This record gives sequence, C-alpha cells and structure tokens, in this order.
Amino acid sequence: MSEAVVITEVGPRDGLQNEALCLTPEQKFAWLKALAGAGLRRLEIGSFVRHDAVPQLADSDELCRRWLADEASKDIQSIALVANDKGLERALASGVPEVALLCAVSEKFNQRNIRQSVQQSLEGATSRARTAREHGRRVRIYISTAFGCPFEGPTAPARVMQVFEKVVAMECDELVFGDTLGVATPRAVRELLQGIDPACRPKVGLHFHDTYGTALANVMVGLELGYRRFDASAAGLGGCPYAAGASGNLASEDLVYVLEQEGFDTGVDLAALARASSEVLKTLKRPGSSRVRAALLSTGMEPIR
Amino acid sequence: MSEAVVITEVGPRDGLQNEALCLTPEQKFAWLKALAGAGLRRLEIGSFVRHDAVPQLADSDELCRRWLADEASKDIQSIALVANDKGLERALASGVPEVALLCAVSEKFNQRNIRQSVQQSLEGATSRARTAREHGRRVRIYISTAFGCPFEGPTAPARVMQVFEKVVAMECDELVFGDTLGVATPRAVRELLQGIDPACRPKVGLHFHDTYGTALANVMVGLELGYRRFDASAAGLGGCPYAAGASGNLASEDLVYVLEQEGFDTGVDLAALARASSEVLKTLKRPGSSRVRAALLSTGMEPIR
Repeated sequence: MSEAVVITEVGPRDGLQNEALCLTPEQKFAWLKALAGAGLRRLEIGSFVRHDAVPQLADSDELCRRWLADEASKDIQSIALVANDKGLERALASGVPEVALLCAVSEKFNQRNIRQSVQQSLEGATSRARTAREHGRRVRIYISTAFGCPFEGPTAPARVMQVFEKVVAMECDELVFGDTLGVATPRAVRELLQGIDPACRPKVGLHFHDTYGTALANVMVGLELGYRRFDASAAGLGGCPYAAGASGNLASEDLVYVLEQEGFDTGVDLAALARASSEVLKTLKRPGSSRVRAALLSTGMEPIR
Repeated sequence: MSEAVVITEVGPRDGLQNEALCLTPEQKFAWLKALAGAGLRRLEIGSFVRHDAVPQLADSDELCRRWLADEASKDIQSIALVANDKGLERALASGVPEVALLCAVSEKFNQRNIRQSVQQSLEGATSRARTAREHGRRVRIYISTAFGCPFEGPTAPARVMQVFEKVVAMECDELVFGDTLGVATPRAVRELLQGIDPACRPKVGLHFHDTYGTALANVMVGLELGYRRFDASAAGLGGCPYAAGASGNLASEDLVYVLEQEGFDTGVDLAALARASSEVLKTLKRPGSSRVRAALLSTGMEPIR
C-alpha cells in the first residue's frame, strides 16, 4: 500500500484573497463541493478577517455555515483563517472545526500585515489557540516569511527556529512553514527543515509559492526529510499583497501529480480537480498556472502516460 | 570557489523549431549575440535538416556562417543539430565546431520522427559521429524518449541502458538523455540515472521539458547524483511536434536561478538573459513560460532577494 500524505487545499482562502474579481457565495459553495468531490480532504474555506481588509472573503461567515450544513462537508476537515480575537469569535460561531492562526518571523512583515510585533502576534496566537482548543477546535498555525521577507530579505533559519519553538509550545495540531514570497530554494528548505526534531516533523506542513518555479523541488526536499503535509492551491491561484512579484501558490494539480508519481496515495482525482479549476478560472477571468492542468487540458484530460 | 556546471542553451534550435512564427536571420543573429552576452557558453544555434521539415530553421546554413564569422562567437561552443548524412555535409561546410546527433529509445517514435528503426538510427549516428570527429568536430548525441514516448508510453530504464551502451561506444563528447515529452519525474530520473556508471556521468547531459512542471525537481535529482550538464531553452520555448501536450523546455532562466541558489557558478547574468527572451517573445507573439523571468519582470528585473 502507498504511503499517505496530507494535502491542505488553500485555494478558496489563500487563492482567492488577492484576486481582482470575486466569486459569489454560490460559486464558492460549488467550488468547495467540487474540491471535495475530487478527493481533497482538508479545505481552507475562508477567512475571518475585517471585511474591508479582504473583501473577496467577506462572505466567509455565511459560506462556512452553509458549507458545514451540507452533506458534502461531512468527510472534510474544513478550516478557516483567523487573524484576531474578533475573527476567532466569528469562527467559533460559524462552527468551523479547525482554525488557522497567523504569526510571522519577520518583524517588518508582521507590522505591515497585522500591525503587531512578532512577540505580540505570538502572544495573540497562543491565547487564540487555547480558546479554540477549549471549544474543541483543531488548530493550525502559519509561520509566515519562513524563508524570506519583502522588507527584510532572506530569513535566517535560526530566527525561524526561535519562533518555531514558541509555536511548538502552543500544542497546535499543525505548524506550517509559509514561504510567503516564493523565494524558498531547495538548499534553503533543506537548511531549515533538517534542523527540526524528527519527532516534530509529522505535524509540520509546508506551504510554498511558485514565484521562481522552485515549489515542487522544495516539496521533494521535504519528502526526503520525512515531511508529509503540504499546502497547495487549485489552479495555482494566490499571491501576496505585500510582495511584488510573489506569484501564486504551488498548484494543487502539480503537487498531486508529483506525489502520485513518487508513489504516495493522495486520493485525488486529477481530472476532476482540473475541471473544478476551470470553472473558477472562467469566473476570475484569468489563466491558471498549473502545468499539469495545462497538459491535461491539451490531451483531453488524459495523462500522457 | 563555486563548482561549475555546463548549460547548453537550446532555445535557438529546440525552442524555435515548433513555433508558428519564424524569426528572421537578423533576429536570430541578434538573439545569439544577446545569449552569448548574457554569459551562456554553449549554444545550439540551428538544425541541418530538410528545409520543408523544419522551415523555422531553414536558414541555419546562412546563420551558422554569419555567426561563426562574428567576434561574439569566439568564446562560444556553437552546436548544430544534424539528422542525416546530407545534414552532416552541410554542418561540416558551415564550419560549426560541434554537431548534435539524434537517436531515440522508442521504435515507434524513431519511425515517425526520422523513419528509421532504433538500430538503423544508431548505425547512422555511429557513422556520422566518426565522420564529424575525423573533421575535428565535437559530437553531442541525444538519446530521445529516454523517459516516455507518445506512442509507446513510459520507457523502461533497461531499454534506455541498451541504447546508452551503444552510444557510449561512439565515444562522443556529450550524451544527452532527452525527456522528449516532459514526462520524467524525480523517481523515474533517479531510477535511470543511478544505473549509470559514475565514471560516465560527467559526459551525460540532461534535457528536460516542463510539461508537468517537474523539470527543476528532476534537475535536483541529477545534481544530487553527480550530473553537471543540463539543457535549457531561454524563456522556456519549445515543444515536440509528435507529442500532444508536450510543452516547452525547462526555461534557462529557471535553471540558472536554481543552480546559482544551490551554489553553482553558471556565469550567466539572469536579467540580461530575461531581456533577451523578451525580444524574442515579442516577435513570436507569445508569452514565455519561465517563472523566474515573470518574477524578474514584475520587480523591474531585480531579484526579490
């Protein structure tokens, strides 16, 4: 039997939050159903942040309630991003079973993104993680700018480790190194990841953007070192509003393809996933960045081999 | 000092041969100068095949002579593709110092591509390699469909090794495994490459297409196993006329970026390379597929970090 991997689909949250056009709640709901239907089992479905900060996701309360009431959500680990205490209240009220919390390694990025110091953001996340757990929710926490910051440049692994240790103490269910800019390279990934206690690795997720085309090569380094949790965004949607040139997330289609080829069992139907992406891209009026999806489309959704 | 790698830029040959629009000899000449100016040292500049078979490269005789007479070509290892005896005559007449010969592992691909059996193509290549060497030319030989064939599916490493052994006997300067379709995956690359005698590896080149986005991950496997020769195409131009869905070559910009990040010395000026690609893409009226070039463009040609 193939070894399992854990994929967290972040398209409906990280993928949509920087798009010029918005999906309607109806379209988002249909997309979530399609993603679940394609076999994805962990979906980051929305974001409880200020409506004016991320208007693309302002309907997250309504969407969460509707999605969680639907039969299609029953086998899915649904996740919503939470940026502050108010957001956590909304998340708890929505019934979402898992929250994603934020912290960043870079002081300047943290200031611009959430107007807090790293220390303040860690204290806030610690408090929210505790509250979420007390309400029986799972907790995932992003450690952003783990490889580079648009304001401070490359991130020293030693600084990441300082934040990581504090995050480990929060006893979350998943700790995610976020390559916010897409500047992670295989060498930098190896340097950081080999310093992590192997006992911690099963809980560590890797979130790569594909700005410089290195995302899959980075995933391969993670696999080699025993990491089995990866984020990806259908069609490669996504970006970072504070980072010029930061392009989309690693495309879920590309991640699933390479994982299956390496012998892992993802449970995902690639053609169904690519079809779901096509619907969304049509509404957003933009091309996707997944190479696998492009190849499948050009061959009538049949893999070449 | 950083370790050296050998990059063969195949854009002017493999990149152009399937384009709907043609560059003029003047534009090709300017591109070669720009590629050399960006620091690339091995350029596959054209193809001596039938004019009606590849009209995009029908001016190779003229281009070769003009290029080789120019001062800019003096430090460059210029290469031309040769498909048959007539092509070799033209290549020798042009004065090009290195010829690239062709063979393929797949019988069906060989038949459709050059209307010969694998055995016949090996005999022809052996004869042409001998003649080229007698005329003081360097010889590089492509072993095409080394990972998969559009007609026969995945290629068994054992079959590749049979062809490889015969090619080794030709005593060429470089032997190139060609992933004609872009179906090579890290696992398949490892399976094939770890079977090659380590003493042979310094002469073996790797030619990946990026159809499924795995090209850079494949390069990383090659690097780990001691391979140091890689083909790439500026802007990611290229494709395969016999393979539906086979997209461009690995983009030179993406290859250079990852090699430099891994600590290898490529000698290439990325911004200059990306600017050269922009000129060519304008004429071809198509977008490039290099992620690094897109990132550089969006940041005014300055790397993010």
